Amino acid sequence: MSTARTNIPFSRESLEQTLKRRFFYAPSFEIYGGVAGLFDFGPPGCAFQNNVIDAWRKHFILEEDMLEVEATMLTPHDVLKTSGHVDRFTDWMCKDLKSGEIFRADHLVEEVLEARLKGDKLARGEKISEEEDEDKKKRKKKVKEIKNVKLDDEVVKEYENVLAQIDGFSGPQLGELIVKYNITNPTTGGKLEPPIEFNLMFDTAIGPSGNLKGYLRPETAQGQFLNFNKLLEFNNDKMPFASASIGKSFRNEIAPRAGLLRVREFLMAEIEHYVDPEEKSHPKFNDVKDIKLKFLPKNVQESGSTELIEESIGKAVSSGMVDNETLGYFIARIYQFLIKIGVDPSRLRFRQHMSNEMAHYASDCWDAELQTSYGWIECVGCADRSAYDLSVHSARTGEKLVARQALAEPRTVENFEIEIAKKKFGPKFRKDAGTVEKWLTSRTQCELEDLGKELEANGKIVVQVKGVEGDIELDTDLIKIEKVKRTEHVREFVPNVIEPSFGIGRILYSIFEHQFWCRPDDADRGVLSLPPIVAPTKVLLVPLSNNPELQPVVKKVSQALRKEKIPFKIDDSGASIGKRYARNDELGTPFGITIDFDSVKDDSVTLRERDSTKQVRGSIEEIVEAIKDITYNDGTWAEGTAKLKPFEGQSA
Amino acid sequence: MSTARTNIPFSRESLEQTLKRRFFYAPSFEIYGGVAGLFDFGPPGCAFQNNVIDAWRKHFILEEDMLEVEATMLTPHDVLKTSGHVDRFTDWMCKDLKSGEIFRADHLVEEVLEARLKGDKLARGEKISEEEDEDKKKRKKKVKEIKNVKLDDEVVKEYENVLAQIDGFSGPQLGELIVKYNITNPTTGGKLEPPIEFNLMFDTAIGPSGNLKGYLRPETAQGQFLNFNKLLEFNNDKMPFASASIGKSFRNEIAPRAGLLRVREFLMAEIEHYVDPEEKSHPKFNDVKDIKLKFLPKNVQESGSTELIEESIGKAVSSGMVDNETLGYFIARIYQFLIKIGVDPSRLRFRQHMSNEMAHYASDCWDAELQTSYGWIECVGCADRSAYDLSVHSARTGEKLVARQALAEPRTVENFEIEIAKKKFGPKFRKDAGTVEKWLTSRTQCELEDLGKELEANGKIVVQVKGVEGDIELDTDLIKIEKVKRTEHVREFVPNVIEPSFGIGRILYSIFEHQFWCRPDDADRGVLSLPPIVAPTKVLLVPLSNNPELQPVVKKVSQALRKEKIPFKIDDSGASIGKRYARNDELGTPFGITIDFDSVKDDSVTLRERDSTKQVRGSIEEIVEAIKDITYNDGTWAEGTAKLKPFEGQSA
Repeated sequence: MSTARTNIPFSRESLEQTLKRRFFYAPSFEIYGGVAGLFDFGPPGCAFQNNVIDAWRKHFILEEDMLEVEATMLTPHDVLKTSGHVDRFTDWMCKDLKSGEIFRADHLVEEVLEARLKGDKLARGEKISEEEDEDKKKRKKKVKEIKNVKLDDEVVKEYENVLAQIDGFSGPQLGELIVKYNITNPTTGGKLEPPIEFNLMFDTAIGPSGNLKGYLRPETAQGQFLNFNKLLEFNNDKMPFASASIGKSFRNEIAPRAGLLRVREFLMAEIEHYVDPEEKSHPKFNDVKDIKLKFLPKNVQESGSTELIEESIGKAVSSGMVDNETLGYFIARIYQFLIKIGVDPSRLRFRQHMSNEMAHYASDCWDAELQTSYGWIECVGCADRSAYDLSVHSARTGEKLVARQALAEPRTVENFEIEIAKKKFGPKFRKDAGTVEKWLTSRTQCELEDLGKELEANGKIVVQVKGVEGDIELDTDLIKIEKVKRTEHVREFVPNVIEPSFGIGRILYSIFEHQFWCRPDDADRGVLSLPPIVAPTKVLLVPLSNNPELQPVVKKVSQALRKEKIPFKIDDSGASIGKRYARNDELGTPFGITIDFDSVKDDSVTLRERDSTKQVRGSIEEIVEAIKDITYNDGTWAEGTAKLKPFEGQSA
Repeated sequence: MSTARTNIPFSRESLEQTLKRRFFYAPSFEIYGGVAGLFDFGPPGCAFQNNVIDAWRKHFILEEDMLEVEATMLTPHDVLKTSGHVDRFTDWMCKDLKSGEIFRADHLVEEVLEARLKGDKLARGEKISEEEDEDKKKRKKKVKEIKNVKLDDEVVKEYENVLAQIDGFSGPQLGELIVKYNITNPTTGGKLEPPIEFNLMFDTAIGPSGNLKGYLRPETAQGQFLNFNKLLEFNNDKMPFASASIGKSFRNEIAPRAGLLRVREFLMAEIEHYVDPEEKSHPKFNDVKDIKLKFLPKNVQESGSTELIEESIGKAVSSGMVDNETLGYFIARIYQFLIKIGVDPSRLRFRQHMSNEMAHYASDCWDAELQTSYGWIECVGCADRSAYDLSVHSARTGEKLVARQALAEPRTVENFEIEIAKKKFGPKFRKDAGTVEKWLTSRTQCELEDLGKELEANGKIVVQVKGVEGDIELDTDLIKIEKVKRTEHVREFVPNVIEPSFGIGRILYSIFEHQFWCRPDDADRGVLSLPPIVAPTKVLLVPLSNNPELQPVVKKVSQALRKEKIPFKIDDSGASIGKRYARNDELGTPFGITIDFDSVKDDSVTLRERDSTKQVRGSIEEIVEAIKDITYNDGTWAEGTAKLKPFEGQSA
């Protein structure tokens, strides 16, 4: 893999060394030997991340007037039981009982089959790509069995077909594949136990008694759903609207590798857009409808292919490939955001979830995937979660989570209703009366219909209610269930939720890969071409030498930059200009200002652009203005420096 | 308690209702019944918090060029064992074995004694303050025993003395007080078990095997210390410097109450300033030396008094009351920050830790305490942690955590050194050779001296090394320990750490109390006088009516505000102007712009100031300029609106 910028192929190793040397990030607790899947961000990593979050807030929250919420990470068991995470937020793991090693089943199958396919290619004398080659080198240590063994054509096809659907297999299916393809512990060849489910949530106990079980949240979404009523009220009951949260979530990965791409503690930014299920059009869809995107829809994947379809989001929605306008609107907005912060558009695709990988309640789901040396990586999910979350929390707590719409015309509806004879009911159930009543009034229409039939047939119903001991008998003296006609002026509905969900760390890492390159013919001079808007520092100030004569100009430029709130650093170390710029190329600093002895005479300085190393000369005011234009007002280098003289002095 | 702004006394209940109604915050998981000590922030709470964090970043990180770090919350056991948290991050709790209730021992003693003192006052017919009265009402439900019982004068004195030192008692001491003063379960009168230690960290297991025990960090500091070497390198090895972290920490409170003041998950902002232990002066101390502060030093507290000393930080340092200039500098900077974001200076004091409450390694520690209806609350700690943290992590991991200073003149030093005969050493210890060597070379001077004596006396030493089985015998053939004279050109030292540590949630809540008041003679019209720089929204745009004629002006004003990046909201609901402003007074919005039918003619609008309800009139440009000046450039209302005409139209 290589970018157009350079003749030197991309090297992950070189990128990772640069990022660690410049302390973008580093393994956490390194002096204690580290813990897999945990990373710390150093100063440039923090600044880059803060800038991306700031851009996210402006692009989404401010632009759409979303309601920001900060919910806690500690979450009690009941909430995550209701949401389904206690039962279903799991991966399948295989144990090698002999060595004690634990593998994530789907990753194991994927790696072993990919290794075998490469061995087959080599055996057939086919060339494998640089990328594959690098993968292979890494894998060789782990997957002992990479041997140049030719496979039957049919087997190759079968393996490829399995790999195209690898995200869709259940645990037992993975178990079958492991047996069928005779997959063992790649390092020892040891036999593996069948896959078992492992819940990925970190658990803990809240409070001193140890009785209240809690988890670290696996997503920020639930905290938003639980506040739905307060948010709707804050929004003056107007629909549609969105809430948003930025915060850490946790996932106790079975075997984290792949650096920042698979970590146990990560920053998410999630939007929950609440919308009328009967009206999923979007007022601003027209603004984005012509944006062309690369799609990988589910039917293509299910046919075993990964060929992309390139078309406008407008067409994708009108053809029904993308379920609705609101979902399509957010897909396009995600695209715009990712490009703005430095994602290479040629390495971004939207992959639709296949039927067997999508949550049962979701009506459609697309992942923004970014291509890296690890393959295509899911970085943003964009799902229509339907009414699932609000419905289940409502059913569990008995709290209505609904929106209301005044009807243009009143309408007549027929519903089953339950009538309780309070005078007899209270004395009969005493302290349980409230619980039983709440249970009765929170039945669905379907349930009421069934209970009504039972009541009519037997003259009574017998039910169990959580929190009340024994059977509860209710006869026609106590309750009536009847279909009642009413005129409604207000329509009540459970909103559907469209959820764009961003894994910030994965996006940051992908941008590193997309924007890292080396100066032609010099693999030691790495450059991180972060867009100015997200670059940790915008300007490096470089006085030509330590000569105190230059100090007054350094001070003047500093003041001018500070006044415009442009983050900058001064490098007045003794190192050569070239060395000082090289260090800042690695830090992604887009601009350099050189102060020389001419500057002392006329207050003119040189501005250097990181990627092209082009230089222009101008007054301090002109140069600061140009930086401001390019960094904050979307100007290009050509536009921002149009009025300035090219400079051909000391090149760096 | 009441502020100068109004004749209506402060009511905590009214404040809390306002904050919940406007969704500044709310109990987390409320529809599930809530979990004590966990709160969610709604949109205005998030915006307020984000603005405070932004102000903090500018005031501290940018101003002092600090290195921001983001470390993980999940922390392995070993790290927190070394830091002392596993053994000492505890509170004492008492169990009522009969009812199962659990009390925090120090809080229980405090509450019961305070209740008895109030009962005594009432019995003596003395007046108790409003604040005490409110406290008493709250407490009555809990502390059953508040009875108007007169106490002996001596007992009163004794109780008061205990209360003045309540933060300094050990668990066994609290146990003695409970017995001595016959303190029981306040609601039932039941007998309590003696206090036992409860570790306040949430624990969990990292990874699928369950073998790696971890905790949620109790502070952000450790993650910074562990990255010390990387940070020093990033800073080009220059000292002194500071790192900073903003992030969540956790504390499994025994019995959290007091709203945002005592929570289980909270946002911290912490600075670790690394400084040469021999040189704790600060280059910018002169800038702050004349700032006058209110101090409560330890000797005053130990004498049983709480009388404040008001003097300049310069004097406090020169008199030795505050240990050193760097500590003093940060105390003054903390003061400036708190005032800027809305703390009432008359309700801020700096309390020094008493000898028995200070960590054993700290050389001095001052808390910025804010006065609230719950009493004086610790909101910022500012401690000199000496070399403790870096030393213990270094000793535990064998990794040097030191800074180096080139000496002006070389100097001769004498140190014990150990010489290892590698040729014999390796073959003798084989695979353990590395471990044993590391153990030997990481001994302190003291230890080396002792080992040297032993070696000389016996011709051998016998030691145990972690990770190596059995005794290890080393004789003079294998090692030599001698005092060696060397000339040093570089001085190596373990930096001391000055740590300002901010509890953001507590600060936010205290500001709510300091800035909440009611319009004269109308307890229903609450106002939250947040300073413009931290207010969630800066401007409310209020068209006089729904008339579409006004819309073009609304659009113009919106564009002008958006261009200047001033956060604003439009309220074009049908409600009266007064109602709309009242709602925004509660939200802390400092400015209102009214658009009326004159605006349509001449593009003039009215600007309203929240606290005074003063109004001025001017062109859109003038009004936006005034808002910008007051909000972002520290202008007062008088300065910002000097050129504008007072307006006496519709008052609100």
